[in-house]
Amino acid sequence: MKENGIFITFEGPDGAGKTTIINLVAKELPNVLLTREPGGIEIAEQIRRVILDKENTAMDPRTEALLYAAARRQHLIEKVKPALQEGKVVLCDRFVDSSLAYQGYARGLGMDEVYTINQFAIEELMPELTIYFDIEPELGMERINQNKGREVNRLDLEDLDFHHKVREGYHILLDRFPNRMIRIDASGKVDRVLKETLRIIKDRMSL
Amino acid sequence: MKENGIFITFEGPDGAGKTTIINLVAKELPNVLLTREPGGIEIAEQIRRVILDKENTAMDPRTEALLYAAARRQHLIEKVKPALQEGKVVLCDRFVDSSLAYQGYARGLGMDEVYTINQFAIEELMPELTIYFDIEPELGMERINQNKGREVNRLDLEDLDFHHKVREGYHILLDRFPNRMIRIDASGKVDRVLKETLRIIKDRMSL
Repeated sequence: MKENGIFITFEGPDGAGKTTIINLVAKELPNVLLTREPGGIEIAEQIRRVILDKENTAMDPRTEALLYAAARRQHLIEKVKPALQEGKVVLCDRFVDSSLAYQGYARGLGMDEVYTINQFAIEELMPELTIYFDIEPELGMERINQNKGREVNRLDLEDLDFHHKVREGYHILLDRFPNRMIRIDASGKVDRVLKETLRIIKDRMSL
Repeated sequence: MKENGIFITFEGPDGAGKTTIINLVAKELPNVLLTREPGGIEIAEQIRRVILDKENTAMDPRTEALLYAAARRQHLIEKVKPALQEGKVVLCDRFVDSSLAYQGYARGLGMDEVYTINQFAIEELMPELTIYFDIEPELGMERINQNKGREVNRLDLEDLDFHHKVREGYHILLDRFPNRMIRIDASGKVDRVLKETLRIIKDRMSL
């Protein structure tokens, strides 16, 4: 069965305002499904519980990457694909690119290798458009801390190196997929970021 | 750290007498670890529970293949690799070839594709030797049914087609990996099969 909808994913670090923007975007478009993995899909939720179980401290990074790919597959089959077949605009908060930037690049498993298992998981179903919310890690962290109402601490600063690597990973992906992936400067105010995001999406949908 | 042990896997359908033979082989060799996935490894057991949960009827075959690969990874890292580093003879009941024959070939996911995700899971750690217990599916099924004390039924006969495909899959692997994979005719008596298995293993280990 052919998919008639349009599949759009959103990427970027926490603190970029991604979730806020997606929720606003969803209100501006017709016939939307807004989702994120595991998205209430029972099998995917079970898999995610194995990943997040704090007792599982011995989990190998490759085991984790395979589990993310498995949860992704099931969410795609049970939720994303049926919605696309109904002609919906599917907005998905994080997808393959998160695994590539975080696990493939920043954690050092290798982007090509992580892409291989994700390719197995999604077959040909890559998004038509991916919006990447770009922000300096320092600013993203500041925003997160403002939300939590606390100062930046030593652990946050150690994290900073990691988040710089994640950002490098995303920038490599921008170079590799210039048609699919569009960068938005997320350091500005919500109104401006939302406006730019909507413009890009409507352009792509010829709305 | 270098592995000093030897990693041997055993393959073939149920009813070939695989488990009986492995248990006897283990008694004849020094410094053995006898295991099978998930092998009591907590994370791998949790993953296996997701696969085997009868409520999970909607599980996609690719999700399942990724979960098997994830459980394999964790079992390898926590159990197989440390034993090899201690210089043990690791005997593993089923490994990558099972996924290739059952899911890759018989279920039609594609052997190369299933190999790709398994390669990610095991990196370079393929067994040095794989013993494949070959048996006509009809005979294997007869043996299983003798154990259960019942006649062959309609469902068994439908299964027969599937088991013929699994066997075809294994035969393709034999052609592809002639050095690693050795076929043993498992239709004979236990004594003879055991003797041949031990001869092959001891040859390989130069015992």
